[in-house]
Amino acid sequence: MNVVKTIEAVRTMRWQNPSATWGLVPTMGYLHEGHISLVRQARAENDFVAATIYVNPTQFAPTEDLSSYPRDLTRDLALLEEAGADLVFTPNDALMYPHGFQSYVTVDEVTAVLEGASRPTHFRGVTTIVAKLFNIVQPTRAYFGQKDFQQTVVIRRMIADLNINLQMIVCPTVREADGLALSSRNTYLTPPQREAATVLSRALKHGLTLLNAGERSGDVLHQEMTAIITAESLAQLDYLSVAHPHTLAELAQVEDMALLSMAVFVGKTRLIDNMPWPSLTAVYGEA
Amino acid sequence: MNVVKTIEAVRTMRWQNPSATWGLVPTMGYLHEGHISLVRQARAENDFVAATIYVNPTQFAPTEDLSSYPRDLTRDLALLEEAGADLVFTPNDALMYPHGFQSYVTVDEVTAVLEGASRPTHFRGVTTIVAKLFNIVQPTRAYFGQKDFQQTVVIRRMIADLNINLQMIVCPTVREADGLALSSRNTYLTPPQREAATVLSRALKHGLTLLNAGERSGDVLHQEMTAIITAESLAQLDYLSVAHPHTLAELAQVEDMALLSMAVFVGKTRLIDNMPWPSLTAVYGEA
Repeated sequence: MNVVKTIEAVRTMRWQNPSATWGLVPTMGYLHEGHISLVRQARAENDFVAATIYVNPTQFAPTEDLSSYPRDLTRDLALLEEAGADLVFTPNDALMYPHGFQSYVTVDEVTAVLEGASRPTHFRGVTTIVAKLFNIVQPTRAYFGQKDFQQTVVIRRMIADLNINLQMIVCPTVREADGLALSSRNTYLTPPQREAATVLSRALKHGLTLLNAGERSGDVLHQEMTAIITAESLAQLDYLSVAHPHTLAELAQVEDMALLSMAVFVGKTRLIDNMPWPSLTAVYGEA
Repeated sequence: MNVVKTIEAVRTMRWQNPSATWGLVPTMGYLHEGHISLVRQARAENDFVAATIYVNPTQFAPTEDLSSYPRDLTRDLALLEEAGADLVFTPNDALMYPHGFQSYVTVDEVTAVLEGASRPTHFRGVTTIVAKLFNIVQPTRAYFGQKDFQQTVVIRRMIADLNINLQMIVCPTVREADGLALSSRNTYLTPPQREAATVLSRALKHGLTLLNAGERSGDVLHQEMTAIITAESLAQLDYLSVAHPHTLAELAQVEDMALLSMAVFVGKTRLIDNMPWPSLTAVYGEA
């Protein structure tokens, strides 16, 4: 496995055989089984696998946890090697955002809601760094986790609108045995908070149960899921959404598909989770 | 020469031999010798040459000449074939901006001045369509005319900032015998306006003469060039600039290089022109 810090080194390896297929897994490091599941799928579907580790400053607001975001490069590299990555790109800020940097990729409507509503510059940072990494690696396929569902909608929109020549693959959220979605930020939780954090997946599962039983009212789904969050004293609801999984527009009435999603503060830690209905495949098969 | 209207047809031809080099010449059609000089240089430097003909609506303001912009596809295709193009992509609006389109590439500082000051959404349209065409063709090299100098600065910035994997080539402005820079919009000029339109190149040449004689004051250069425009009764100055050719920041004092540029109304037709000092090569050699 090659670990490189320059764009030239990435391109040299990428273009040794122009006909080879490459899978890309962009990450901010502090890898967990969710990331590794992306690397494994990329490994199975491509000749070569590139991963990137870069905590991207432009997707953090000044008030957010950029400086305290957890990092462990040694462990990350061991995990990536074990999962079969061929190339790991670990750039620094001076390389990614040199003096005079002033170009951005923006996606308008699907970034205005949910995560974007409370994090107004977040997605511009995400789309810009992802576009840069796509242009640096020029992969055949790029792998993203369902956990950041809105991010997958935004990036899918960017790829379609800007005619980026690759296939995007969204892999299912990996969860702990008790349902908590894996996240690098889970490390911030105290033991009682960790226990309370199961409230997100419990509320979402309840929403799916209602949908499977025939409930179609956005209001009822909202109320029932909100009640579960409210009952957890360590949790504070940020937003809860019943939306169309392609446009992210809120649904008064669910028709053929829905995305249940939420952000919840557990102590100072903001956790997000989502469940698409009827399934991830149903939702993204036609996207 | 293949003339195609779909992205799939472009990509099929582009990737028949992944090792081949491709030159791209993006145009809005109604080709003149300036465009053809780009095709010829692309022909000389690459295995294959692609040209695109697309009048991009997002770079026109509602008040501008989108609907009346001159078009002559039959003549354009004959000129491109004669100049040695292998592939011409002629998409329509539904393909380039389908329903739901919402992603843009923006470049901030260098778009705020000169053309961008009077055309606030123009460069967002340019960078977005050029990024799309780059992603569709994935050329080895892309060719642009010096005539739209600010456009070359903006696209160069976009390529660097977003790590787009191609080489940008800027070719010198092609001029009529009397100095008028070739432009598709010259066709709008009446015979007396056509004669008056030489005022742009006359003023710019005078600026170069002053610089070559040792003048370094931005104010003096401004005044001397403005006097030449003012003396021409059919011409109305829009802006005149003595700027650094990389940042486009106005210069009180010229040091090692400068870009003299202007926009002038001749009747209702808005013409632009520029001359870099000491030379195009000197200015872009280190950009």
